[in-house]
Formats: sequence, structure tokens, C-alpha cells
Amino acid sequence: MDGRFGRNSRRVAYENPWITVWHDEVTRPDGNPGIYGVVHFANRAVGVVAIDHDDRIVLVGQHRYPLEHESWEIPEGGVAVDEDPVVGAQRELREETGLTATTWHELCRLEMSNSVTDETAVLFVATGLTTGASDPEPTESIEVRWVPFDEALAMILDGRITDALSVVAIQRVALDRLTARP
Amino acid sequence: MDGRFGRNSRRVAYENPWITVWHDEVTRPDGNPGIYGVVHFANRAVGVVAIDHDDRIVLVGQHRYPLEHESWEIPEGGVAVDEDPVVGAQRELREETGLTATTWHELCRLEMSNSVTDETAVLFVATGLTTGASDPEPTESIEVRWVPFDEALAMILDGRITDALSVVAIQRVALDRLTARP
Repeated sequence: MDGRFGRNSRRVAYENPWITVWHDEVTRPDGNPGIYGVVHFANRAVGVVAIDHDDRIVLVGQHRYPLEHESWEIPEGGVAVDEDPVVGAQRELREETGLTATTWHELCRLEMSNSVTDETAVLFVATGLTTGASDPEPTESIEVRWVPFDEALAMILDGRITDALSVVAIQRVALDRLTARP
Repeated sequence: MDGRFGRNSRRVAYENPWITVWHDEVTRPDGNPGIYGVVHFANRAVGVVAIDHDDRIVLVGQHRYPLEHESWEIPEGGVAVDEDPVVGAQRELREETGLTATTWHELCRLEMSNSVTDETAVLFVATGLTTGASDPEPTESIEVRWVPFDEALAMILDGRITDALSVVAIQRVALDRLTARP
């Protein structure tokens, strides 16, 4: 993989607490000049499949401003890159649902949209749940719903859940179950 | 899900042929003023799991500029929103690998990063492959590699493939196989 874009210059085109947009002058793989706009994420995404003793998982529903529609998802959030992702996922789960969990297992790490952004994600499964008080951030207005795991999987297969983080995490848990050694 | 961000104003903060960044002044769900930066994608992402008669799939490797590292992925690309996604996926597969396929099946539709972007994706599985000449875009420098499907799944499970589109698509094909009625 030798041919790659070479950076000739970089300027900050836009910046807020969550993203920085860089406008780069580049040399393309074919040697010609070009541009590249990169969206740099300040935080890493985390998400958690939290499973209770009845094999139900918790979903959160919220209006997603960029999409302008509602979305049902696993609990998710942004975690500073210098914070342990599992600590951030534990905080997000507690804030959004009031849940704490005794057992955390990392499912996988992802890159969400690598032609434009550098956003990475870490996904978890959590069990041994205890219910407490939720504490949503002032920027969040969230509905909480419990669904059997098999129903959550059905929601992915028929398109009721379309959030990529949720899809990867629930599919992974389903695959782990289907391929588990007896 | 009543509480949501309300838009008070919008300005274009950055624009190139692939993305537009909007800086919005908003009213947050808690009623306080805030800002929201939205990354609008001009194109929809498409990706295809192309499977040959020996149950191998084609992977493409390339240096991903935003991540600054190499990534092995299913063939992917951007398709204008007014183009049929399967037509775009057929073109991307041919350009990157030289392959055409007789049978196309849509796997799922996704939203890739809905806290910041409005990027959507459509994933396919393609069979009945014929090899022709590839025709990469001048912005692409791509390596092509064939791996058994089970090896591609192993690459996801052990983290050698981290591209979210590839992960969702290969997981979905694996789930469909494991849950297929005999």
C-alpha cells in the first residue's frame, strides 16, 4: 500500500468542543494536487450492550439532531481519549439509564467513517446489573426501554435499529452466542 | 421523545465536494442555548461483500488518510443520493477490483455516526462474480486480496478489520448463515 495522500498544508477550517475540521492541501496518490477535508473527533465513542438476568437489554431512544429523526440505540457516549474507555462507558450507562454492572467485557474496536473522520469506537457487553437513579446530561433527553435480546436482534435485522454502533455490538453478541463452544 | 435540540440559526462553516459543515445556534433539550456542529455528507456510503464460488471474499487494502494507517475493507465508495445505491455499489466494486456480479442482495441500511454526521450507508452481498479490468479513481491506490469468508470473519473477531462498514456487512452475512433455516 504505497500510494497515499501526502499532506502539503493544513489549516483549521472549523472547531467546536467535539470536532475539528482540517482543510488540507494534498498530493493525491496519482501525483496530482488535491484537497482533503478531515473531521477530527475530540472524543472516542463508546457503547454498551447491558443484559439483565432475564436476557433483556436496555435501549435508549432519542431524537438525533444531525439525522432529524428518532433513533433507538444501545447506551452510547463520547469519552476523552485520555480516559479509560470502560470507565467512560460505565459513566454513560449510569447517566443514561441509572444502571451499574459488575461484569464488563470489551467486544471490539472500530473506525466509524474512515474516508472523512478519525472517529474510533469501543464497544462493551455488561452484565450483573443494578438499577439506580439516572442522571442525563442537559443536552440529552432520553427514553429507556427494555427488550429481550432476540427482539433487539430482530430490530437490527428488520431495520428498526440503524445506528452503526448498536448494530455492530448486538450482532457481535449474537455471533458470540451462536458460535460459542457448548 | 419530545425533548430535542431546536435550531435557531445555521451557517455553513466549511464546504468541499464531499462534506458541508454547519454551525448551528440551538436551544438544547433543557431549554438553554447551545451550539451544534453538523457534518453533512454529500454522498451515501456503499459497501459490498463479494463472494466467489470457493466462498472467498474480496478485500481491498488502502491507506486511510484521516486515520493515517492502512485498512483492509470490503469494496466501498460514495454514491450520490440521487443514484440507486446498488448501481453505485456495482460501479465501486468494478472500479476497485474489476469484478462484476450477477446477483445482488441488500443486507442493511445504517447511520454511521449520528451524534455528529448525517452519513448513511447501504450494504450488499454479491455473488456470481466475473473478473474484468479494474479502473481505480485517481484518488485511490488499492491492493486487492482474496480471503476465505471464515478468515474474513476471523479478521473481524480479532481486530484485523476495524472499518465499521466492513464489520457490519461481514457480521451480517455470518449471522444469516448461522441462522439460515436448513
